[in-house]
Amino acid sequence: MQRFSKAVSLLRSSEIRDLMTLASRPDIISFAGGMPGNDLFPVQEIEELFSNLDEKTKQAAFQYGPTPGLPSLLESLSGFLERKGLPVKSNRLLITTGSQQALSLLAKTFIDPGDRVLVEQPCFIGALSAFRSSEAALHGIPVDREGLVIDLLNEEIRKKERARLLYITPYFHNPAGLLYSKERKAELIRTLQGSNIPLIEDDAYGDLYFHEEDRERLQPIKSIDPEDIDVCYTGSFSKILGPGLRLGWMLVPEAIHEKCELIKQSADACSPSFTQVLADAFIRSGKIDSYIAGVRQEYKKRASAMVAALKEHLPSYVHYNEPRGGFYIWLTLPEGSDATEIMKIAVKGGAVFVAGKTFDPEGKKNNTLRLSYCNNTPEQIAEGIPIIAAAIRLLCG
Amino acid sequence: MQRFSKAVSLLRSSEIRDLMTLASRPDIISFAGGMPGNDLFPVQEIEELFSNLDEKTKQAAFQYGPTPGLPSLLESLSGFLERKGLPVKSNRLLITTGSQQALSLLAKTFIDPGDRVLVEQPCFIGALSAFRSSEAALHGIPVDREGLVIDLLNEEIRKKERARLLYITPYFHNPAGLLYSKERKAELIRTLQGSNIPLIEDDAYGDLYFHEEDRERLQPIKSIDPEDIDVCYTGSFSKILGPGLRLGWMLVPEAIHEKCELIKQSADACSPSFTQVLADAFIRSGKIDSYIAGVRQEYKKRASAMVAALKEHLPSYVHYNEPRGGFYIWLTLPEGSDATEIMKIAVKGGAVFVAGKTFDPEGKKNNTLRLSYCNNTPEQIAEGIPIIAAAIRLLCG
Repeated sequence: MQRFSKAVSLLRSSEIRDLMTLASRPDIISFAGGMPGNDLFPVQEIEELFSNLDEKTKQAAFQYGPTPGLPSLLESLSGFLERKGLPVKSNRLLITTGSQQALSLLAKTFIDPGDRVLVEQPCFIGALSAFRSSEAALHGIPVDREGLVIDLLNEEIRKKERARLLYITPYFHNPAGLLYSKERKAELIRTLQGSNIPLIEDDAYGDLYFHEEDRERLQPIKSIDPEDIDVCYTGSFSKILGPGLRLGWMLVPEAIHEKCELIKQSADACSPSFTQVLADAFIRSGKIDSYIAGVRQEYKKRASAMVAALKEHLPSYVHYNEPRGGFYIWLTLPEGSDATEIMKIAVKGGAVFVAGKTFDPEGKKNNTLRLSYCNNTPEQIAEGIPIIAAAIRLLCG
Repeated sequence: MQRFSKAVSLLRSSEIRDLMTLASRPDIISFAGGMPGNDLFPVQEIEELFSNLDEKTKQAAFQYGPTPGLPSLLESLSGFLERKGLPVKSNRLLITTGSQQALSLLAKTFIDPGDRVLVEQPCFIGALSAFRSSEAALHGIPVDREGLVIDLLNEEIRKKERARLLYITPYFHNPAGLLYSKERKAELIRTLQGSNIPLIEDDAYGDLYFHEEDRERLQPIKSIDPEDIDVCYTGSFSKILGPGLRLGWMLVPEAIHEKCELIKQSADACSPSFTQVLADAFIRSGKIDSYIAGVRQEYKKRASAMVAALKEHLPSYVHYNEPRGGFYIWLTLPEGSDATEIMKIAVKGGAVFVAGKTFDPEGKKNNTLRLSYCNNTPEQIAEGIPIIAAAIRLLCG
């Protein structure tokens, strides 16, 4: 019998895989995945863009590229990010194999086994697994409707053993769906200054806002680049082009970029040139902007359909956010409810979601659940939500 | 000032990057990279294959896929590997983001900080960096013309602290260009049996043989799947389609697959669906076989041109392999020569290669150098080799 590493023993086994198997069953309506709708991908646009490229660029798509990314994509993506106010000139950009890899590289750059890492509670599961694979000691800090609870963050920061990272997803949080308030971000910045704790600001969903008036609130902390905090900003093409391209990025200070580049070289040498060439053409053609504008409207429609169905069918003791963007609605059930048991009943009825404990750094708290509306038609939503509501009533009364 | 992890401090800094910068200068003939020739990529074939796919498959190319790989590619690749005699039914296949990721996942699955890992001396630099990033204690075992020196392997195996991995590249070794003999492989198997040390068999170049009569010698150890050894077989589309697709694989026992899948989930969630769809179509169309047959001939031509130039220009005290496949010729200079100094002179003359110490697990031994012929025309070879020969004569007499 082989002995495996300690890191691998810390990773949760087949939970997610089992869920994904359920979610891909054609007889089950899945609100489980964070996958964009298949019908929304810009298939034809990308195919045309590729065939119009010159021969040299097409050949380069088959070749190794530099570890930090293809120069042409670094340039066009810098422009895209600069238009959002991000400080691309005073930082460096690294193209990663999905933003999952950005998190994994940052974890490996900062974390030694046993190091304390602060995350939101609940927290994006991909971040949890990236930190676990670096053998981090995870500490969850609860969020309320405006963001991380600052008093609790302060307590963690004041502990003797310094935390090595703080990870947040302030813009249409996965799974909690929340959008940080401007004030909370300002408090967060003040709290972190002087702590010497790098901040990972994960902005995978920020482009998918439903209301123009939220744009100011969506301004990344990185765009302020506050003094005395190493802000590591991560983003992704997954929600604004397609996750199957496996392209994300980080915008980070030079010294951190250098370390992440080294780790990336050992991890997969470079990101796929083929899809980098496609993403570059998508940005340069300007099609990315009209595409994002289109999917925003579509996700808004799906979110409204889900909110309407929840309003109609959920018992009044269930609380949830009305999403202002992104992919998710987060349900909070009465204390002591077990979302896993509810899910088992819902699956028999023909619908599935993700139980809350999956997003708990300790894997325990389970009176919550995540619904995704991103990959469902309004009809599927109208059919699936009553099944889940019935399962909740059956177990919670 | 941030504190970084111990793992990142073990990785070599800018050596490779500096070399790649040199290698990409248009005024320098580069024999440095292990990159396939840009002119050889099947650009048109792939473009046609993609446009002929049905809409559903094209959409799936934009979507997340299962962590172990797209089912359709797992199926077609299984067929491709089974035709080589590999035991796909009694093992499991994992698609990776290049075979570099396969090495990185295996490292993270087996290695805790400080664990002993056995590698060939010289060794593929990507493997060295994957093992270093897991904080392995590397031990190089010299190779001769037939493979790993078994007596020295035996010494390492007999040491009290068990090694956690043995890594070899028996088929057109990078950088040493050698092809293991059948006898040496048999000895290696006998030596490993009972040692409880998993074997990574890296077969990135095996398809690129120049002589039909070598096919038996190219039969992977994995195809025997010897009792009592966990053989982890890795391969890649990089040399038989294009590295820019970032697709490789590992064929491993079930228990190891399960661990590597978990680590992959934390590392980048899944390999690029877009390029998996392309690779799948390439295999299913049968075009992969004719393509490989074509590049074999082309690389054979380039290898012959380089051997001819070396015969003409090198001083007789320089020893080298005549390649029977793959990408590389490995030069051994008199004891005490410094290939880095030779390179500096060659660069001034307009040609570049990789100095031997890059491939030394200890980063010291430097009376050797690697020449790649894969990305050069016979004309470039005829022009570049005399520059290198002159630099050798200047320093070694």
